[in-house]
Amino acid sequence: MKKINIGIIGAGRIGKLHAENLSMRIQEANPVIVSDIFLEAAEKCAADYNIPQVVKDYREILANPDINAVLICSSTNTHAEIIVDAAEAGKDIFCEKPIAHDLKLIDEALEAVEKAGVKLQIGFNRRFDPDFQRIKEYIKEGRIGDPHIIKITSRDPSPPPIEYIKVSGGIFMDMTIHDFDMARFLIDSEVDEVYTAAGIMIDPEIGRAGDVDTAIITLKFKNGVIGIIDNSRKSVFGYDQRVEVFGSAGMVDISNERPNTARLSTAESISEDLPLNFFIERYTEAYINEIREFISCLINNTTPSVTGIDGRMPVLMGKAAKLSYAENRPVKLSEVDE
Amino acid sequence: MKKINIGIIGAGRIGKLHAENLSMRIQEANPVIVSDIFLEAAEKCAADYNIPQVVKDYREILANPDINAVLICSSTNTHAEIIVDAAEAGKDIFCEKPIAHDLKLIDEALEAVEKAGVKLQIGFNRRFDPDFQRIKEYIKEGRIGDPHIIKITSRDPSPPPIEYIKVSGGIFMDMTIHDFDMARFLIDSEVDEVYTAAGIMIDPEIGRAGDVDTAIITLKFKNGVIGIIDNSRKSVFGYDQRVEVFGSAGMVDISNERPNTARLSTAESISEDLPLNFFIERYTEAYINEIREFISCLINNTTPSVTGIDGRMPVLMGKAAKLSYAENRPVKLSEVDE
Amino acid sequence: MKKINIGIIGAGRIGKLHAENLSMRIQEANPVIVSDIFLEAAEKCAADYNIPQVVKDYREILANPDINAVLICSSTNTHAEIIVDAAEAGKDIFCEKPIAHDLKLIDEALEAVEKAGVKLQIGFNRRFDPDFQRIKEYIKEGRIGDPHIIKITSRDPSPPPIEYIKVSGGIFMDMTIHDFDMARFLIDSEVDEVYTAAGIMIDPEIGRAGDVDTAIITLKFKNGVIGIIDNSRKSVFGYDQRVEVFGSAGMVDISNERPNTARLSTAESISEDLPLNFFIERYTEAYINEIREFISCLINNTTPSVTGIDGRMPVLMGKAAKLSYAENRPVKLSEVDE
Amino acid sequence: MKKINIGIIGAGRIGKLHAENLSMRIQEANPVIVSDIFLEAAEKCAADYNIPQVVKDYREILANPDINAVLICSSTNTHAEIIVDAAEAGKDIFCEKPIAHDLKLIDEALEAVEKAGVKLQIGFNRRFDPDFQRIKEYIKEGRIGDPHIIKITSRDPSPPPIEYIKVSGGIFMDMTIHDFDMARFLIDSEVDEVYTAAGIMIDPEIGRAGDVDTAIITLKFKNGVIGIIDNSRKSVFGYDQRVEVFGSAGMVDISNERPNTARLSTAESISEDLPLNFFIERYTEAYINEIREFISCLINNTTPSVTGIDGRMPVLMGKAAKLSYAENRPVKLSEVDE
Repeated sequence: MKKINIGIIGAGRIGKLHAENLSMRIQEANPVIVSDIFLEAAEKCAADYNIPQVVKDYREILANPDINAVLICSSTNTHAEIIVDAAEAGKDIFCEKPIAHDLKLIDEALEAVEKAGVKLQIGFNRRFDPDFQRIKEYIKEGRIGDPHIIKITSRDPSPPPIEYIKVSGGIFMDMTIHDFDMARFLIDSEVDEVYTAAGIMIDPEIGRAGDVDTAIITLKFKNGVIGIIDNSRKSVFGYDQRVEVFGSAGMVDISNERPNTARLSTAESISEDLPLNFFIERYTEAYINEIREFISCLINNTTPSVTGIDGRMPVLMGKAAKLSYAENRPVKLSEVDE
Repeated sequence: MKKINIGIIGAGRIGKLHAENLSMRIQEANPVIVSDIFLEAAEKCAADYNIPQVVKDYREILANPDINAVLICSSTNTHAEIIVDAAEAGKDIFCEKPIAHDLKLIDEALEAVEKAGVKLQIGFNRRFDPDFQRIKEYIKEGRIGDPHIIKITSRDPSPPPIEYIKVSGGIFMDMTIHDFDMARFLIDSEVDEVYTAAGIMIDPEIGRAGDVDTAIITLKFKNGVIGIIDNSRKSVFGYDQRVEVFGSAGMVDISNERPNTARLSTAESISEDLPLNFFIERYTEAYINEIREFISCLINNTTPSVTGIDGRMPVLMGKAAKLSYAENRPVKLSEVDE
Repeated sequence: MKKINIGIIGAGRIGKLHAENLSMRIQEANPVIVSDIFLEAAEKCAADYNIPQVVKDYREILANPDINAVLICSSTNTHAEIIVDAAEAGKDIFCEKPIAHDLKLIDEALEAVEKAGVKLQIGFNRRFDPDFQRIKEYIKEGRIGDPHIIKITSRDPSPPPIEYIKVSGGIFMDMTIHDFDMARFLIDSEVDEVYTAAGIMIDPEIGRAGDVDTAIITLKFKNGVIGIIDNSRKSVFGYDQRVEVFGSAGMVDISNERPNTARLSTAESISEDLPLNFFIERYTEAYINEIREFISCLINNTTPSVTGIDGRMPVLMGKAAKLSYAENRPVKLSEVDE
Repeated sequence: MKKINIGIIGAGRIGKLHAENLSMRIQEANPVIVSDIFLEAAEKCAADYNIPQVVKDYREILANPDINAVLICSSTNTHAEIIVDAAEAGKDIFCEKPIAHDLKLIDEALEAVEKAGVKLQIGFNRRFDPDFQRIKEYIKEGRIGDPHIIKITSRDPSPPPIEYIKVSGGIFMDMTIHDFDMARFLIDSEVDEVYTAAGIMIDPEIGRAGDVDTAIITLKFKNGVIGIIDNSRKSVFGYDQRVEVFGSAGMVDISNERPNTARLSTAESISEDLPLNFFIERYTEAYINEIREFISCLINNTTPSVTGIDGRMPVLMGKAAKLSYAENRPVKLSEVDE
């Protein structure tokens, strides 16, 4: 069996998740080295998942000719630079989203990838979830006719630390970005214009950090479809991830995944357990599937289904959504493209 | 038992519905006369529901001192004038929505009501539906904490005739008006600003008649809540009437009512019958409840819960939604108030 | 419009329910007289539903040549005798279930009906409920192929008074009788043998009254289908009325009807309101439909769909179920037929 | 990390499933050898899951002092003998169900285990499924009060080969055995008596092989609870695995697991995909959990929760169910115990 030698750059929460999946779920993957600027994190990860080597500096990974591909799981502000370095080193790349907040950095990274002819897959894991995939299939099969309206509900169980919000680029860049990707994926058309209504309803600290915590974003697609994304930083009943696409011949919708099907009927009410709490529990299978596709593309020399442009467009949408909120007017994506 | 003598003005679909409910469901109501400019329609209605008298001109009803109250079920363009006449004749009034498309006419009607001291109830039937009432209760009881987001889905099974669209005031006035009322009712705050994204996706004839058939309207309430209404003139699976209110402590939502609970499992799928098709089937109970409240207010000399201002505000919202679409910008309600 | 003059015999809970439906819902019905051995009950009923005449003795109703039909809503022990009297008086008959506990009395009543050539409909209201009717339709259309298994869950919200249990014939006669009817109706075959497992789990007083409060009855039909009924006198979450029919090509099931579709999501759970509490709320529409069919049969001179044999068979099944429990063995219906 | 060296005896479908879980999911497990009387099957399994050694004869596994435990996944008729051999060799044992069809063989095996003081876990995987576990939790927490009725629906998507049926011991031994275990597990009381109604409705060949394909089994527990199991060899809509427990203070039920939450609304119906098709898909997580518990018991020197008596009782119940069908009468478990 051909195996792909992989280096993992960054051993934080998402890096460890990929390390586990590569070592425990995907036989064709051979995770051989992990780097982290905190060497201890890399060592812990290596011990947990039987990865033989650890380094502090990712450049050592890139310098190793036995490594076929890298997973970039470091902090967002390093993604673009590492992509450039990895591309120049001839490594295939899986990069967590977003590539960068700055379009110029993104474009430089994509150019480097293009020039080097390496593969690049962006970590929009939801595309690989069975629920979202089933919606996509129904639409592609024409079961709902022509789509007219898309509605995406995406709410986190609780806000991230304020320190994170200060550097994340804000809700549109760290949270809505997944929904922007999903909207493009399902409707199969680019968004032309967005309009944002938003507010600070959960925690005034979030406002002081320059962000909002609750938002509704209207989307107008180039093919005429209209859409809505609604976001909240705090859903007390857990991770709220639903989509509905309404069309000329029908509608398809998905609801939240639950940990079990048990239903309790008492003298007070009929009740069920809360949905799976957050992305680690909710998208377990999606994370495995996306890495499996990446490995499969490398083995079969095919192009990943989520590539550079899919990493760039949601960032553009995030910038437009932010400007729309700041100026309280619809904003065309072309206005914020550089 | 005290009985209220009622005259029904207009014997079209909705007039007949109220006639049936008054004669068959509400013992305190005594429908004694029905008018229609097409006398045959009045006669048919009278025969079906044992109403003793018919006339062509509603003024004969108003002139009759035995009549306590009137139901105005005639075409929209006559509502305001009849309200004025009925108020001056000292009759209590139940009027179908909208009062008028023109704010000046509405204000004149409301002034006449105020001056005469008669009761006025506007026919926003959905407020009296068990599903919508249960949402309202949960919110009032604080079960979802402070509301943050309201989402209303409201889609008709098929578009009305083009001739109707030409005189109805368009989708925001003939269809969204119910959703505007529901938004105010549930959030208990006035809307400050709206933004409309819309399109003609179902029938180009609708566009030629100056209307749209698919719309998403963003609402910003004075209390900070943000909301979304999405409308379509054509939902192939039937009348789609759902609401979701998301708050700091939880969420409440209602789904479509179905004709039965039967579920069929075959080798192909698990399936259920379509929801109740349209408003006559869906809101049977709500129509009875609203008339029962009207009669009860008359008997007990209390004020109806849906009165003049509730008739006026949704018209204002409709005007703002229309202007927002025309100019592709958020529009404050104060801009369109006269 | 032809109208049927009706006399109501018995003004208890079920008599009043029929009186209301006849007077308020069914235009072709003309309830003209009501009798009750407690005259005050008859007077109250007459006042509430505008019924012009009241008498104490039902024989006065039968003696009145203007009366076309009677509804027998008196206590069970009088049903058979009144059927005989009414048949001899040439009246069409609607009779609440059961006809009697004693097969001989039933047979005499059915013979009198046969001899007089009058119509007889038995009050198995569930057959007229939209949920149960939809199951029947699916089966008749062959959507589940050949039925193999039928499962009926039927649980009351709380036990009746002990005094009632002492005279009702016990759980199999006052409660399961509806399920026996439903089983025959849906499978369209007679039951050949039953086996009962049961116990006293809710209230030892029920046991002292000679009855059980919890039961599982296995049914073997003549056409080979096997089935299960499970009963409880006390379901704390309300009236539990569900059916599932499993066949060679699929399954159809119905669940409980709820008062609204509202769903509340909080930090603790996702919850819904309890089902409709008891038969008056649950079968509102079914009670109207069954009387509408009766009136329709009289007007159009057709045979009711639920007639004498349908009144007799469930009593036979009840006797077999009781004997099976007493002797802890399967009992053939032929053993208890006289 | 302490690791348990494991030998897998039998490399058929279930053996391979455990091999995959041990090698890919459970870090503390070290599958070092696999045996199969068809050596090729063992070799294929070893290659797929990186197991270093293969042998034909399981005795070679037992003779190896480095092996801590064995998984018995061979054909049913060999289980008891291998348990005896493994116990005598001092190996801890995980054995697939049933231990044997013959109670004497079971008792000899359990005695050998007792005498050797080794651990024994029986493969009743459903106990480790999140749905069934949630029901158990609700009951243990007293959320439904005292259980009164348990109902288990268990239907396979299609019958096994006739050759299998001829040696499996029949439906009660190869299929209902899981439901018998679940009934004991949830009610936490032994069954005293059973009554079986059954038939051959799917395939006459099954009847000619001496078995039935559709069955309803009534259970009477020693603690007074009554219960029902219904089985079918062929559910066209897939694996049908549901449970409901009804008690004095409420009810808890679980429904089928589906591959996704997508719902399609068209002009014809509202539909969903079929449930997960069969046990491999449905109980993926349960199979991992049961082996994880086994390994955990070995590491922490604790007793497995599903042990010898849990392997014996369902066989006894199966014998009683079979006799009940043969003689059409309730049968006490004590009648068939040897």
